[in-house]
Amino acid sequence: MGEVDLKVAVLGSGAMGTFFSSMLSKEAEVYLIGRSRTISKIRELGRLEIRGKTRGRFKVNLISTEEIRKKDLSVDLVIVLVKSYDTREAVEEIKPISEEAIFLSLQNGIGNEETISEVIGGDEDRVIGGYTNHGCTLLYPGVVLHAGEGETVIGDLRGRISKTVEEIADLFNSCGISTRVSKEILKEMWEKVVINSAINPITAILRIKNGEILKRRNLRELGEGIISEGEALLRKLGYHSERLKDRWIQVIEATSENKSSMLQDIERGKRTEIDYMNGAIYEKGIEMGLELPLNWTMWKLVKSLEEKLW
Amino acid sequence: MGEVDLKVAVLGSGAMGTFFSSMLSKEAEVYLIGRSRTISKIRELGRLEIRGKTRGRFKVNLISTEEIRKKDLSVDLVIVLVKSYDTREAVEEIKPISEEAIFLSLQNGIGNEETISEVIGGDEDRVIGGYTNHGCTLLYPGVVLHAGEGETVIGDLRGRISKTVEEIADLFNSCGISTRVSKEILKEMWEKVVINSAINPITAILRIKNGEILKRRNLRELGEGIISEGEALLRKLGYHSERLKDRWIQVIEATSENKSSMLQDIERGKRTEIDYMNGAIYEKGIEMGLELPLNWTMWKLVKSLEEKLW
Repeated sequence: MGEVDLKVAVLGSGAMGTFFSSMLSKEAEVYLIGRSRTISKIRELGRLEIRGKTRGRFKVNLISTEEIRKKDLSVDLVIVLVKSYDTREAVEEIKPISEEAIFLSLQNGIGNEETISEVIGGDEDRVIGGYTNHGCTLLYPGVVLHAGEGETVIGDLRGRISKTVEEIADLFNSCGISTRVSKEILKEMWEKVVINSAINPITAILRIKNGEILKRRNLRELGEGIISEGEALLRKLGYHSERLKDRWIQVIEATSENKSSMLQDIERGKRTEIDYMNGAIYEKGIEMGLELPLNWTMWKLVKSLEEKLW
Repeated sequence: MGEVDLKVAVLGSGAMGTFFSSMLSKEAEVYLIGRSRTISKIRELGRLEIRGKTRGRFKVNLISTEEIRKKDLSVDLVIVLVKSYDTREAVEEIKPISEEAIFLSLQNGIGNEETISEVIGGDEDRVIGGYTNHGCTLLYPGVVLHAGEGETVIGDLRGRISKTVEEIADLFNSCGISTRVSKEILKEMWEKVVINSAINPITAILRIKNGEILKRRNLRELGEGIISEGEALLRKLGYHSERLKDRWIQVIEATSENKSSMLQDIERGKRTEIDYMNGAIYEKGIEMGLELPLNWTMWKLVKSLEEKLW
């Protein structure tokens, strides 16, 4: 996989998909894949645009999921940036142009890499794990606010040295997306989801900004309780995680004025990613013989908010 | 203690205090004790009034807590109907006119009888336990809406046959307050608090009417989880409680259009009784060697709502 003429499909035309496809268009041939409603709105606009910490206007190829079957195209890399609950359907839809491609998930939550592997079948080497800490908000189709700088981390799922992973990281860095390769990507992904599991549901249930969690003594205790459950799971999974509570506090302090993505979803009447966060932690716990009741309670409360919306 | 010329102080001029003092004025000499602000408003009105399922206007003696020390009065029975968190202070204040009185708590939650015993000192026989299922809402000082009929249950705290308890029940019944004597009042009080512990906090956190708990699958599961924790505690306390989940469902169905008292407190920016409900269940659990994490989580979430208000 060379950096020249590399064909990259970005799957998902939300905030992160718009940001990544824009940035990568500097060095690669980028195809942004989205639902036809969104894609046609971006076509009206004629370009992608980033505002905020990063600024610029970008030209990328646009393909709606309906158009994929008609395309005579074969991409080298698919970056998956749809909501976790849409992963299976979206990866199914992109199959015709991605038979030989490497898949990289930068989604929130746990379990997306497994879903992608199941859909594309067989060769696990074709799926790379990762996450990104950029703070992006979609202003309208094609226009994203880059509100917070953050690291992007990717890695081979089995913890091996991988030339492909190194090359993707090089591409990202050369496009201005600060990226690190991790030899413990699964551990890091679990740590990220544990930290978010003690932020997102609390903010969604009580409809508060992130910073409130540290301002109210009872919420700080609740969050610490949720982190403790996550730490127990991480130990059971064989990961040696350190200072998770300190890192949880740092994340809240750095995002204290933000509304979490889960709160934004609830406010917009959208489904949340709770199944892939506290739900996934709870279910992995059960699999490993651990009861994690605080995660279960957060899961049930947020799901009940979705029940009202649907 | 005879029914004729019985002097009864009702401690607390909220919805329940107004209801009970009105009803008891049919057969007893009633003194309604409240904060001076409320008492002076009732004096302007000139009477108490019940609307709704029961209707009537009633004359009772009114005493503000500031006036108690000046009164040359000795009451026979004190019915405690202040919020649980005000119990200690209110019982202290009524001491001058209740040196020989029997105290009956009809408050929500667990722990009030112990608090009363501590304040009046020594003789435990002077405190009787109980609860009431009447649904009352204060419309304004002195005027209460009687929205739902319900049983009142009282009993000797040590489970003995008690002539005093029988006489109080007779008085209540003769005044139209349907009352039953229980030989297992502590068990029944714990059962009531367990049932409420799986209704009130859920409705206060999510700001929903009681009936929503059964309409949303995830909240029904959450409530059943909270009841299961309560059942474990009741077993540990040596109580043989049956069909608690069925009774929980019955209570929700009978009150499906109601806002719980805890939700009303949150909406009015008032402190809740969560410490005497899920907080008390959690702490009794710890005392008995049980972890009850769902109760802990409900406790922390509702306390965090109070933190915002204060």
